[in-house]
Amino acid sequence: MALTSTATSVASEGDLAELVGLRHKHFIVTLKAGTKFETHRGILLHDDLIGRPWGTQVYSHLGAPFFLLQPSLADLLLDLPRSTQILYPKDIGFILIHLGIGPGKKIVEAGTGSGSMAIAAAFAVGTSGHVYSYEIREDMQNLARKNIERVGLSTRVDLKLRDIKQGFDETNADAFFLDVPNPWDYVAQIRLALKPGGFLGTIVPTSNQVEDLLPALRQCGFAFIEVCEILLRYYKPEPARLRPVDRMVAHTGFLIFGRRIEPSRDERGIELIREIGASEPIPSQEQ
Amino acid sequence: MALTSTATSVASEGDLAELVGLRHKHFIVTLKAGTKFETHRGILLHDDLIGRPWGTQVYSHLGAPFFLLQPSLADLLLDLPRSTQILYPKDIGFILIHLGIGPGKKIVEAGTGSGSMAIAAAFAVGTSGHVYSYEIREDMQNLARKNIERVGLSTRVDLKLRDIKQGFDETNADAFFLDVPNPWDYVAQIRLALKPGGFLGTIVPTSNQVEDLLPALRQCGFAFIEVCEILLRYYKPEPARLRPVDRMVAHTGFLIFGRRIEPSRDERGIELIREIGASEPIPSQEQ
Amino acid sequence: MALTSTATSVASEGDLAELVGLRHKHFIVTLKAGTKFETHRGILLHDDLIGRPWGTQVYSHLGAPFFLLQPSLADLLLDLPRSTQILYPKDIGFILIHLGIGPGKKIVEAGTGSGSMAIAAAFAVGTSGHVYSYEIREDMQNLARKNIERVGLSTRVDLKLRDIKQGFDETNADAFFLDVPNPWDYVAQIRLALKPGGFLGTIVPTSNQVEDLLPALRQCGFAFIEVCEILLRYYKPEPARLRPVDRMVAHTGFLIFGRRIEPSRDERGIELIREIGASEPIPSQEQ
Amino acid sequence: MALTSTATSVASEGDLAELVGLRHKHFIVTLKAGTKFETHRGILLHDDLIGRPWGTQVYSHLGAPFFLLQPSLADLLLDLPRSTQILYPKDIGFILIHLGIGPGKKIVEAGTGSGSMAIAAAFAVGTSGHVYSYEIREDMQNLARKNIERVGLSTRVDLKLRDIKQGFDETNADAFFLDVPNPWDYVAQIRLALKPGGFLGTIVPTSNQVEDLLPALRQCGFAFIEVCEILLRYYKPEPARLRPVDRMVAHTGFLIFGRRIEPSRDERGIELIREIGASEPIPSQEQ
Repeated sequence: MALTSTATSVASEGDLAELVGLRHKHFIVTLKAGTKFETHRGILLHDDLIGRPWGTQVYSHLGAPFFLLQPSLADLLLDLPRSTQILYPKDIGFILIHLGIGPGKKIVEAGTGSGSMAIAAAFAVGTSGHVYSYEIREDMQNLARKNIERVGLSTRVDLKLRDIKQGFDETNADAFFLDVPNPWDYVAQIRLALKPGGFLGTIVPTSNQVEDLLPALRQCGFAFIEVCEILLRYYKPEPARLRPVDRMVAHTGFLIFGRRIEPSRDERGIELIREIGASEPIPSQEQ
Repeated sequence: MALTSTATSVASEGDLAELVGLRHKHFIVTLKAGTKFETHRGILLHDDLIGRPWGTQVYSHLGAPFFLLQPSLADLLLDLPRSTQILYPKDIGFILIHLGIGPGKKIVEAGTGSGSMAIAAAFAVGTSGHVYSYEIREDMQNLARKNIERVGLSTRVDLKLRDIKQGFDETNADAFFLDVPNPWDYVAQIRLALKPGGFLGTIVPTSNQVEDLLPALRQCGFAFIEVCEILLRYYKPEPARLRPVDRMVAHTGFLIFGRRIEPSRDERGIELIREIGASEPIPSQEQ
Repeated sequence: MALTSTATSVASEGDLAELVGLRHKHFIVTLKAGTKFETHRGILLHDDLIGRPWGTQVYSHLGAPFFLLQPSLADLLLDLPRSTQILYPKDIGFILIHLGIGPGKKIVEAGTGSGSMAIAAAFAVGTSGHVYSYEIREDMQNLARKNIERVGLSTRVDLKLRDIKQGFDETNADAFFLDVPNPWDYVAQIRLALKPGGFLGTIVPTSNQVEDLLPALRQCGFAFIEVCEILLRYYKPEPARLRPVDRMVAHTGFLIFGRRIEPSRDERGIELIREIGASEPIPSQEQ
Repeated sequence: MALTSTATSVASEGDLAELVGLRHKHFIVTLKAGTKFETHRGILLHDDLIGRPWGTQVYSHLGAPFFLLQPSLADLLLDLPRSTQILYPKDIGFILIHLGIGPGKKIVEAGTGSGSMAIAAAFAVGTSGHVYSYEIREDMQNLARKNIERVGLSTRVDLKLRDIKQGFDETNADAFFLDVPNPWDYVAQIRLALKPGGFLGTIVPTSNQVEDLLPALRQCGFAFIEVCEILLRYYKPEPARLRPVDRMVAHTGFLIFGRRIEPSRDERGIELIREIGASEPIPSQEQ
């Protein structure tokens, strides 16, 4: 698969390929000998693509030009069939780095949605890590399964169908990513899935949700809480007339991060607990 | 090492540990039995830290409280000793995802600087990938070497001391990251290091540099060029008085991305080449 | 006074003058023959300033240089002695234009605070308009009175000391500006002070306040509600190294605007009322 | 005229009126007894509008509802027929306040364009101030003339048709606003039109233009130069789901401000001149 393959210069059987045509039309396909790709601009035979160097131009039987490229992770995420609000690469990149999601890590997430975070995390954890992704709606899970299969990452992701009110099978996860409308309802359960000191990240679209989530995080023994948003502004790449584009995405969501901390009633630590925004005293009966 | 270890609940010999004390003071240390950590708030023995669960509170001999945490990649990058402009996690996360830097990838970068991108990339490519990092100044390279060793990623990074005008040893790299004041001078050399269709990313602080770089990219057979900037705004995590913080970082740099495309003089493709902003005709004598 | 004078080329008795010295130190004084201005960089006699063209350099008795300038409205507002959160020129300019505050207009505002909005509005309404400004704290009102006198706009502003729960003396105001922590408590009273179709503008620092204010506006017959925020980013004015400054103000407040609309129970209008976000039905017993 | 009238509660002959219908359709008309307003949603007789309180709902002969409102200055500016890039209220409000444009001021501007800045300035300077606006294209000037007449501000604006390379008739202006593609070509002429210490403001869309303008400002005796941009982000006014809108304007232009300073070769002032970014030495032969 393109995403997980080591460096290859040429398009190969089984690779994900992106075809970029006129008017910024682009299509992502999996190369398979003997099949063909049809657009309203003509037909391309996969056999004519396989073996070509990436970055070359190819032509449909009508002569329409396309660039043949390996899709980046960002390209793939933006191209996913979806039935929910998309997670944008600008947010995903920041989440991955803040949650320390990399090779070998054990990641749990809910809800699966269209699978974009599961894909990004599965890409990042490599063959030595693993992603466990929970979803309550079967139709969503099926969509995500197809998306994950398409990019060749199925072996790295366990999809689970469950109401997460009931908790998670995993313990000792390195990080947890939560993308549900009511995150405050699941913070206690998430705590049990995370290892001590583990990372929690979540995204919500409204300020009301941030306001509701923050007290729940404190009450359940999370601290080092950060709330932020990321704005991405593109420029027109014209060297003699450099300027930002006319319009941009104004909002995707508020990102909230926190870390599981361990309870202590030691008097010497009260001031520090207050300073880092944790609840006081932290419930001592928790695991 | 903490960064590359699989999930562990307790602080162990050799782990990177972050101690967070009052007034947001934080220190990152490598745990080593028999040594001690001294602050103006008192002494902590590593032996008293090793074996403790992450996320717990520990106390100096003067009773000053600290939280014991595993540093995240973002924490580590912000903590690096440095003598140059820092690369921020907000930019690094976006660069990693846009360049497709993940397990198994072969990455080349210049200049090494304090090593923050080398560290982030080495973390992301895992044991199956590799990073080649060029620098012209020996003092910078030495600083980077120490930083990379400290986080336990030396085996994944080759540091090379060279004026990159002379080109790179590598070919067929998946992605190239460039962080130098005059990126336009090296685009032809970078092209030769990248595989066909490979990704180039760079960051520059001024608009003048963007204006100078864009024509060089086109002339050297790069296309699908994107220029953008990322703004990160934090909020005060107060649920009853939610609001952005008073001040924020206004600018780190302009990010410029492009992909190596292959030359073609085919007339059918002229319009598409124009549309994607490539030079026309693309020099056909290139490799 | 400088603010209200017609064009003059030279500094004159009674003018507000800004002295800008080294290290961006600046001082705003009212020119008065026979007096002197003392800084740690030496003494300047007002008699030596009066009669000099604006924009010239003057020197203290120690030879320290200063530029002699007329302060702009923005300069004055940023220089006001204050005991509360400042209103920034970026917000004031937008508020003035959105509320249609210009020559001849009748403006009511609460609370007066340090008087910055009263000053900006008084400047804008000219001699033919008027500003009525309410404040509950006498110390604040006294500070505002001194600030307004200093800029020579006292004759255009009536300062009133009152708990605005009790309502306003004025009716038929063109626009109302509200800057208090609990704006939702006064919307009904404001409605009575405004003319039909009149403009209401307010600023609050937190999202919680926006959430609380919006329903009150609807219930009291305000519609065409807009919520926004303004971000101002400065650049370093270096032509060969143009780039944004390193840090910026991340937040001053959320601006909320609305207009007094008149009640109607006409069935034909229900859909439109819903669309513009007004309450339905609008209370018909109001004036 | 609505814009310049003192407070009136009811729509009157000659007033500008805004009719806001379903789907946010809005129309601005001048009320004139005996005429009618036709939309695809039916006809409204001006006689049925005149005498109605502002903020009430009115209905077409087909029963389509409209709100009857006085347009704000911002509404009018956004509604202007135009053939050029629009100046946005967010920028205009900031420019007015930074240039000190208020009652009684003498303002010069070029180019007139569609007249939006001329209208905003004419509104702000009142009957005691005046605006002189230069344009090189007759068709643009004619469009601006119609726009200015429509809002009833013709007596406050002198429109002049000229290549401003030849300079300006006015001297001693309080402020100058410049909105042309090549502002650097006119800075010397503008200096002669401004009073000592007078304000210059300009807007350009690209960073290249900023880079070209800055040296010209310094060479012609302008200092206290500021470059900035304003970002305006709207929120959906939903109290239970408060969040920014999905998309926003990413860029209108870079604003550049400066002040005319007077030449001096006094050695004591060299350091200060350098610090404020003026050219050194300032040409001493200028007026």
